[in-house]
Amino acid sequence: METMMPSTPIAAIILAAGKGTRMKSDLHKVLHPIAGRPMLLHLIDSFDAAGAAKRVVVIGSAREQIEAAVAERNVDLALQSEQLGTAHATQMAKDALTGFDGTVIVAFGDTPFLKPETITRLAGALEGEGAPRIAVLGFRPDDAKAYGRIIADDEGAIAKMVEFKDANAAERAVTLCNSGVTAVRAADLWPLLDRVGNDNAAGEYYLPDIVMLALADGDRAQVIETDADEVIGINSRAELAYAEHRWQQARRAQAMADGATLIAPETVWFAYDTQVGRDVVIEPNVVFGPGVEVADHVVLHAFSHLEGARVAGGASVGPYARLRPGAVLEEDAKVGNFVEMKKAVLGKGAKASHLTYLGDAQVGAGANIGAGTITCNYDGYFKYRTVIGEGAFIGSNSALVAPVTIGDGALVAAGSVVTRDVEADALCLVRPPQEAKPGWAKRFRERMLARKKG
Amino acid sequence: METMMPSTPIAAIILAAGKGTRMKSDLHKVLHPIAGRPMLLHLIDSFDAAGAAKRVVVIGSAREQIEAAVAERNVDLALQSEQLGTAHATQMAKDALTGFDGTVIVAFGDTPFLKPETITRLAGALEGEGAPRIAVLGFRPDDAKAYGRIIADDEGAIAKMVEFKDANAAERAVTLCNSGVTAVRAADLWPLLDRVGNDNAAGEYYLPDIVMLALADGDRAQVIETDADEVIGINSRAELAYAEHRWQQARRAQAMADGATLIAPETVWFAYDTQVGRDVVIEPNVVFGPGVEVADHVVLHAFSHLEGARVAGGASVGPYARLRPGAVLEEDAKVGNFVEMKKAVLGKGAKASHLTYLGDAQVGAGANIGAGTITCNYDGYFKYRTVIGEGAFIGSNSALVAPVTIGDGALVAAGSVVTRDVEADALCLVRPPQEAKPGWAKRFRERMLARKKG
Amino acid sequence: METMMPSTPIAAIILAAGKGTRMKSDLHKVLHPIAGRPMLLHLIDSFDAAGAAKRVVVIGSAREQIEAAVAERNVDLALQSEQLGTAHATQMAKDALTGFDGTVIVAFGDTPFLKPETITRLAGALEGEGAPRIAVLGFRPDDAKAYGRIIADDEGAIAKMVEFKDANAAERAVTLCNSGVTAVRAADLWPLLDRVGNDNAAGEYYLPDIVMLALADGDRAQVIETDADEVIGINSRAELAYAEHRWQQARRAQAMADGATLIAPETVWFAYDTQVGRDVVIEPNVVFGPGVEVADHVVLHAFSHLEGARVAGGASVGPYARLRPGAVLEEDAKVGNFVEMKKAVLGKGAKASHLTYLGDAQVGAGANIGAGTITCNYDGYFKYRTVIGEGAFIGSNSALVAPVTIGDGALVAAGSVVTRDVEADALCLVRPPQEAKPGWAKRFRERMLARKKG
Repeated sequence: METMMPSTPIAAIILAAGKGTRMKSDLHKVLHPIAGRPMLLHLIDSFDAAGAAKRVVVIGSAREQIEAAVAERNVDLALQSEQLGTAHATQMAKDALTGFDGTVIVAFGDTPFLKPETITRLAGALEGEGAPRIAVLGFRPDDAKAYGRIIADDEGAIAKMVEFKDANAAERAVTLCNSGVTAVRAADLWPLLDRVGNDNAAGEYYLPDIVMLALADGDRAQVIETDADEVIGINSRAELAYAEHRWQQARRAQAMADGATLIAPETVWFAYDTQVGRDVVIEPNVVFGPGVEVADHVVLHAFSHLEGARVAGGASVGPYARLRPGAVLEEDAKVGNFVEMKKAVLGKGAKASHLTYLGDAQVGAGANIGAGTITCNYDGYFKYRTVIGEGAFIGSNSALVAPVTIGDGALVAAGSVVTRDVEADALCLVRPPQEAKPGWAKRFRERMLARKKG
Repeated sequence: METMMPSTPIAAIILAAGKGTRMKSDLHKVLHPIAGRPMLLHLIDSFDAAGAAKRVVVIGSAREQIEAAVAERNVDLALQSEQLGTAHATQMAKDALTGFDGTVIVAFGDTPFLKPETITRLAGALEGEGAPRIAVLGFRPDDAKAYGRIIADDEGAIAKMVEFKDANAAERAVTLCNSGVTAVRAADLWPLLDRVGNDNAAGEYYLPDIVMLALADGDRAQVIETDADEVIGINSRAELAYAEHRWQQARRAQAMADGATLIAPETVWFAYDTQVGRDVVIEPNVVFGPGVEVADHVVLHAFSHLEGARVAGGASVGPYARLRPGAVLEEDAKVGNFVEMKKAVLGKGAKASHLTYLGDAQVGAGANIGAGTITCNYDGYFKYRTVIGEGAFIGSNSALVAPVTIGDGALVAAGSVVTRDVEADALCLVRPPQEAKPGWAKRFRERMLARKKG
Repeated sequence: METMMPSTPIAAIILAAGKGTRMKSDLHKVLHPIAGRPMLLHLIDSFDAAGAAKRVVVIGSAREQIEAAVAERNVDLALQSEQLGTAHATQMAKDALTGFDGTVIVAFGDTPFLKPETITRLAGALEGEGAPRIAVLGFRPDDAKAYGRIIADDEGAIAKMVEFKDANAAERAVTLCNSGVTAVRAADLWPLLDRVGNDNAAGEYYLPDIVMLALADGDRAQVIETDADEVIGINSRAELAYAEHRWQQARRAQAMADGATLIAPETVWFAYDTQVGRDVVIEPNVVFGPGVEVADHVVLHAFSHLEGARVAGGASVGPYARLRPGAVLEEDAKVGNFVEMKKAVLGKGAKASHLTYLGDAQVGAGANIGAGTITCNYDGYFKYRTVIGEGAFIGSNSALVAPVTIGDGALVAAGSVVTRDVEADALCLVRPPQEAKPGWAKRFRERMLARKKG
C-alpha cells in the first residue's frame, strides 16, 4: 500500500498494558488474532506501511508472549509496572525514544484497524506553517455511549476534550468521540506529559489532558476524523468476533470487486494476507489460513481449507480439500474430496481426487493419484520424501513408503505398499494371490446369527 | 442453575394438544428439537430446575411419541380428546393432580424457552399477604400482532384480558401481550375452570377467562413481565428455525463471555448441554451434538462435528474431525482431518492425524496412528475392541482386525492387515514381496491409447 | 407452475449486449450462475413457463459462450455490434421476429428473477377492449436511487417516463421506478422504435421513449407494479452475491413451509431444481448442486454436498458425505462420513459408513461396505463397474478392482485387493501371512533416537 510519507519521522507508541480481564484468557489481549494475525501485528504493520522509524510497545505483563510475537519485528518494549493511566503509560516509552526528534503517534494495541493513511494524515496535520501542536483522531460512532467527547469547531479546531462522566448534557449530545489516538512532536510530548496530573475520580494520569494543557498554553489542537470502523476497540471475545466480522466483510467485498465470485460471501474467511485472482469461484464455506495465493480461473469448492498454499491458474480444489503449508497446485491440477496435502507439489494437470494424503511429495505433470493413496512420509522420528514421475498412475489404496521414487509413466497396482523405487514405465505390483473359500461366508453367517439369537 | 425455590410446591401443566398442522410433520410438534433436544424437554427441564413437584403434559394425539420422549422423566400424560380450548385442555390435567395443593403453572409445549427463574417468579407472585389470586406472564414484542392484550396499571395489576379480535383501538394500542403462561393455586384453578364458558366466536373455553372471573370475584390478578424471546412460540418450521437461531445466539454469547474465542460465532452450533472451557478456540463451522465436554486450551478446527465426546486440555480437533459418542481425547491428544472416532480413547499426546477410523478402540499415550488406519471393529454381527499400547506406531493404511492388541512400543508396518496380537516392542509386517515388470506400463499405455482411438 | 396464458402469442426480446465490465470476468455477465444456473437461463425458463412462442437474445459479444449456454433451448441470437441504447438493441431483434404478430416483452438478461406470472400479467394488460398500447413493469425499491421514474395516476395510467438525471425534484420524489421491462404489440413496436431519437446527453436511443411517443399519439400506457426483489439487476459480483442470497432465502422459506427442518437455514444452499420432501431434516452446512431429489423422512447431516443425486425415503446422508451425479440411495440406505459416491447405487438398507469411494458401482440391498473401501473404477484410460451383491460384507480397507462382481452374501476379508469375481456366499481373502520380529521396534527406536540426538 502506497501512502504519502510525511517529511518528519514518525515513532509509534503502542499502549498495551491493559489487563484485558474481560477476555478471560491466558493469552495477552493484543495477541488475540484477527484474520489469522495477532491484533498487535496488524497495528505494527500499519505503522510500518506509514514509514514509522520507531515503534515502542508499552506492556504491563506477559512480556514473554509479546516478545515472542514481535521477535522478528523491529520493536522496543517498555514496561509499565503500575497501571496509572494512559499518560503515565505513554511516559514509559520515553527511554526507548531517547534521541528521537520527530512526531510521536500514540495508539492502542487493542484498536488494531488504524490505517497507514490515517497515521500519515495525523502526522501530516502537525506539519506546515501554523500547524497545530497536537492532532487527535476522532470518530462518530452510531452509538456514542460513554466515549470521551471532543468539542471542536467546524474546521476541527479543538475547544475541549471531556471524559463522558465529566461531560454536561450539551457535551454529551456531541457525536464526535475521542479514539485516544494522538499525534504530537516528541519535543512537545515529554514536557506536556510531565505536567499531567491525576486529580480526578480514578486518580489516573490521562493522555487527553495534554490537549487541554496545550490549549491552556495558547496552542492549537486539531481533530482528524475517521470512520468508526477504523477505531473499533477490543475488550472481550464478543468484540473480537465483531472486529473479525467487520474485517471479513470488507475483505469479501474487496475480493468481489476484484473479480472473484463468492457464492455465499458470509461463509468465506480470509486471512490477512490471502491473495485471490480474477474469475476465481469460491463456493460456500471456504477457510483461508495465512499464506495463500490463488491465481486466476481457479475453483475453490465448498468446505475447503487452505493455509500456506499456492494454487495456479485453472486448478480445482475440493470440496473437502485441505491444503496445508507447502501445498502447491500447478496449472490445471485437481485436488478433490477428503484429500490433504502438506509440503507437496501436484504438477500440471495432475490429479488427486479422493481420500488421499500427500505429504513431503512431488507429483509430476499429468500423474493420477488413485483414491486412498497415502504417502508414508514419517517413521515416527524423521520425515522422508516421495517423488512421483510425470504421467505415473498410482492405483487406489496404495501406500508409498518414503523415501521412494516412482518413475515417469510407471504404474503402481491398486493396494500396493511400495518400499523400493519403481523405474519409469514399469508396473509395480505388491499383492498376494486371491483366495476363495466357497460357502465360508454362508456358514459364518449362520453361526453368527445363531450366536445373536443364543 | 440455582434459583430461589418458592415455599409452596409447584405443579406444571404443559398444554401440548395442538395439532401443529403448519409443521407438516409426522413428529408431534413439541418433540421437534432445538439445540438437539425436543422442545418439550427444554420446558420440563426448566420446571425441574424450578423444583416443580409434578408435571402433567396434556396431549391430543401421538401419545406413543410423547411417551417415548418423556419415558425417563417423571411426567404424567393427560388426554384431551376433543380440542375445545385452553381452559378445557387445562381441565384435563385435573385427575393427574388429584391431591396436589400447591401452585399450578400452566405453560405451553410449543413455548419452550420459559426460564426456571421466571417460573419461580410467577409462583412467588402468589405468595405473601395480600398476594393476587392469579399471575399471568406478559411480554412486549417488537410487533404485537394479534396477541391477546393485557390491560394493567403501572404496578402490573390487571384490569382486563382481551383477545385481539375483541379489542378496541385503544386496547390494541397496548403493547403488553399475554403469553398465556399462568400461575394459580390448585384450590382456585379447578373451580374457576368450571365457571369458564364458551360463548365466543370460536366456541372455545379460553384459559384467560379465569382472570376475568377472578377479577369479577373482586380478587386481584397480576402481570409479571418477561423478555419476548422467552415466550417465542413455535408453530412452523420457520419459527422453529428462528427459535433455534435465538437460542444459538444466546449460547454463543455465553461461550464468548466465558472465555472462548469463536472466530465466526454465527457458524458454531451448540447443543443444549455443551460444555466449553476457557481459552478454547472454535474455528468457523463447528457443530456440537449432545453430550460434549471440551476442557480449557483446546482448539476445535473448522468443519468439526462432535457428539457425546470428551476433549481434555490442550487437545486439538480437526479440521474435518468427527467425534461420535464415546470419543475421548486425553490431554494434548490430536485428531486431524477426515478422522472419525467412536467409543474410542486417544491417550495423552497420541495422534491420529489423517483419514482414520477409530471405533471401539483404546489408544495409549504417545501412540501415533498413521494415515489411513482403520480399526475393523465389526464383522457384520458383533463389535470387537482394538487396544493399542503406549508409544506404538501404526503404519499408514493399516487395518487392525479386532479383537486385537498392539503392545506398547510396537511398530506395525504400513499397509498391514493385523489379525493377531502384536507383542510390545515388536515389528509387525504383513506384506507380500514387491514385484516389478519393467516396460509393462508403457505397453499397457500404448494398448489403451490405441483402444481409445480405435 | 401453472399460469394463465394470454390469448395472444408472446415473444421475448432479452437484452444482453452490455459489456458487464464491473464483473471483471471472462464469462459473459448473463452466464454467471445463480443457484447453479446461468442467470440468462433463469429468464428463459420464465418465458417458457409463460408460454412464450419466441425468444430472441440480443448480444454484443461472447457469441460462442451464449450459443453454448442456450444450445439446447429454442433461442435466436441477434447481434448489436454497436451499443447505441436499449431502443437500438431492441431493434436488432426485428429480423428474428419477422412474421411474429403477437405481444413482445422486452426484458434484460441481467435481471433474471422475472416471474412467469408477471410476464403473463404484463402481456395480459394489452388485451381486451380499450387496453393500453404499452405496459411497463414498475417497482418501488427501498432506495429509489438513480432509477428512472414513472409518473402515473392511481390506476397506473402513465403520464410520463423520466430518466433520473432529467427529473425535477417533484419527479425524483416519486417512488415508482421503471424496471425497463416493457410489453408492446409487435405491430406497434417496430414503427415506434423507428421514431425514437438520440437527442440526449448520452446520445443513446432509449426504449422508454416509445412510451412517450405512444402518449404523444394519444394512446394510453399502463404501469404494472411488482415486487422490487423480482427486478434485481446484476452488474457486479457483489450484486450477484446479493441476488443469490435473496434467491436462497426464498427457497429456504419454501422448503420449511413444505415441511423440512432446516436447523440453520442460512447455511443451506439449494440449486434451482432441488426437490426436498416432507419431514426431511437438513443440518447446518449442506450444499446442493443441480439435479438432486430427496424423498420424505431423510436426514441430511452437516457438511454434506449433493449433486445429481437421488435419496430415497428413510435414508441418511453424512456428515461429510459427497454425492456426485448418478449417486442413488435406495430406501433406508446410509452413507456416512468422508464417503464419496459417483454413478453408484446403494441398495435398500445398505451402508457405506466411513472413508469410502464408490464409483461406477451397484451395491445390493443390505450390503455393508467397510471403512476405507475403494472401488478402483479407472485404469487411467477407461472406467469399469463394480457389482456388489445383496447382503455382501466388504471388509475394511479393501480395494475392488473393476470390472469385478462380489456375489450375494459374500464376504471380502479386510485389506483385500479383489481382482477376480467372488462367488455368492464365498469368503474372499487376499492377504499375506502376518510376520513378527520381536524386539525390532525397540532397536529401531533406540537407533532413531540416537540419530536425532547425533
